[in-house]
Amino acid sequence: MESAIPKHLTTARSRHRRVPDDYRPPYPSFVARHKPKVSHIVMAYFGVQYRGDAPPDAARSLGEIAARFAGADGPSHWDRAHYVDQSGFSNVVSVAYWDDVARFDRWFGSARETWTGASGEEIGRFIEVLRPGVARYETLLSSLGRPEGVAVLADEMSGEVQEHAYWGGMRDRIPLSQTDEMAPRGEPRLVRDGSRLRVVAHDNLCLIRSGQDWSDTEASERKIYLEDVEPVLREGMDFLRDEGVPIGCYANRYMQMVDADGRPTEKSYGQSWWKSLAALERWAESHPTHVRIFGAAMKYLSTLGPSAKLRLYHEVTVAAADERFFEYQGCHSRTGMLAAVEAVVA
Amino acid sequence: MESAIPKHLTTARSRHRRVPDDYRPPYPSFVARHKPKVSHIVMAYFGVQYRGDAPPDAARSLGEIAARFAGADGPSHWDRAHYVDQSGFSNVVSVAYWDDVARFDRWFGSARETWTGASGEEIGRFIEVLRPGVARYETLLSSLGRPEGVAVLADEMSGEVQEHAYWGGMRDRIPLSQTDEMAPRGEPRLVRDGSRLRVVAHDNLCLIRSGQDWSDTEASERKIYLEDVEPVLREGMDFLRDEGVPIGCYANRYMQMVDADGRPTEKSYGQSWWKSLAALERWAESHPTHVRIFGAAMKYLSTLGPSAKLRLYHEVTVAAADERFFEYQGCHSRTGMLAAVEAVVA
Repeated sequence: MESAIPKHLTTARSRHRRVPDDYRPPYPSFVARHKPKVSHIVMAYFGVQYRGDAPPDAARSLGEIAARFAGADGPSHWDRAHYVDQSGFSNVVSVAYWDDVARFDRWFGSARETWTGASGEEIGRFIEVLRPGVARYETLLSSLGRPEGVAVLADEMSGEVQEHAYWGGMRDRIPLSQTDEMAPRGEPRLVRDGSRLRVVAHDNLCLIRSGQDWSDTEASERKIYLEDVEPVLREGMDFLRDEGVPIGCYANRYMQMVDADGRPTEKSYGQSWWKSLAALERWAESHPTHVRIFGAAMKYLSTLGPSAKLRLYHEVTVAAADERFFEYQGCHSRTGMLAAVEAVVA
Repeated sequence: MESAIPKHLTTARSRHRRVPDDYRPPYPSFVARHKPKVSHIVMAYFGVQYRGDAPPDAARSLGEIAARFAGADGPSHWDRAHYVDQSGFSNVVSVAYWDDVARFDRWFGSARETWTGASGEEIGRFIEVLRPGVARYETLLSSLGRPEGVAVLADEMSGEVQEHAYWGGMRDRIPLSQTDEMAPRGEPRLVRDGSRLRVVAHDNLCLIRSGQDWSDTEASERKIYLEDVEPVLREGMDFLRDEGVPIGCYANRYMQMVDADGRPTEKSYGQSWWKSLAALERWAESHPTHVRIFGAAMKYLSTLGPSAKLRLYHEVTVAAADERFFEYQGCHSRTGMLAAVEAVVA
């Protein structure tokens, strides 16, 4: 049993963990470990948006960004997923990860110009980037092998960690929680740059990507996931998408992952932008759908243990004011963090 | 909106609350407020135990203790309830409350001798007393009027308090949580005094009494409580009674309250002894039955709001080493805190 906080990020505490030192979780979970020399991670979401059938521009853009990902200074890992948003638009989002900010910076300039610099097309495009210091994010994985998301960049996986399977574990896994409440300061604001819209988010904005992979499940476990768990998960995701703003969820995307040819895979993830980690905590702990999901997962993993074939993971970031970038071109007004600015104006 | 911690018990913090200052609960709840001059509360449980039909000794003892309660220096409030324990014994428990330790001390000596000093009868008898300083306990009530338990002694009820409807609210309402983790130290031990058995409990032992009153509910609300909520509550209570020890619940009693003539009323409460507040928190947050209860209550109170007729309340104490007394005479070995000592020996 080890702490989710790696040794080199352990500091003298001014804030306590929520569980005592002798706490033992009821089932194992793991976190991704980077080499100590890694200071920041970049998580960059590149979205294409359109209504109805995909226009030729969409496929062209997706091909171009994939080529750029494969080029010089490209990400260490990326994946792609699709969802239909609350306004009925399709969104295809390619998420790319770097563990070297300098490399990302060299790569990003021309990619950005290509992505959001053009206008007058049939598609909207957006870029949402966080580049958190490693003390500002955490991961959690239900099993070893086949990591997803930022965990693919890890140097290694931890052993069983202590800070999970209780409300507050997410916060306790973020190294900065040792000394900082991570309270939001200020409000997001909109900057217009011609037809490009940028959102300047407040300090301590929160991002979660929470995924599930049922590709290895067999008959009975698959049935439980698809019939009992997934519908409840979807209900929670729909709530956040449609009614999240008043509780601090600016945007939620329940994404269906796709393969290199754009075909659906048996993996999905929810990705959402939150006013604060506290707002995410409150929803997770009190909304009936998520409470049911949490209860089901607790029972599921406590019962099946290592024999469970469903894989669950998440990554949660609380970004500093200078660690994020949001830019939208030709997107509708409730896309991503644009919804946060609307909410502020309203 | 006010803090559950009264002004005169507010101190400089070395430990943080779990919610930010701008947290707003989704429905109202209230706490009992004592006069600032009240320094300690006494909660004294007097139990009679027997198998099968009540022997004459039981009725005689219950009459005697009621007469003592009504006498000089008696409690400000008391009530009585019944349950059948895990060994099939009936237990009738009279709970009495004082807000003046000196008065209790004057009253207690002879009452104790009468209660646990006699032996060789057909009944077992026990005394379980906590006398916490007011910084070591908290209350929570879903509505005003008709208080139960220790809240009957209050000088007044609070306005709507902030620290509730989230996991961790219980801890945050206890004034001592501002500066103390309230971790358990040591193990309970048994002291034999002839046929009297005393349990000397460790520091920071935890007691919860959590009650429900459905006497005012009408058709549809009553049906929801009795058919949807109560069976789940009972399942959770049975789990704690039968399987609680490994998770730190030494004893649990799901009590049916009775009136002055011993007839059942439409009120019940669960009362349990815990190794620590943390152990109680972990169970409450992770056990499927309690998570369902919490979710149901959240939904219920958020929806019905002030129109709900079901009344819920609880009181939770974390006692210092010199604030408790447990004595058993002629009871079976799994009665109350005797189960904790058994567990230690095992």
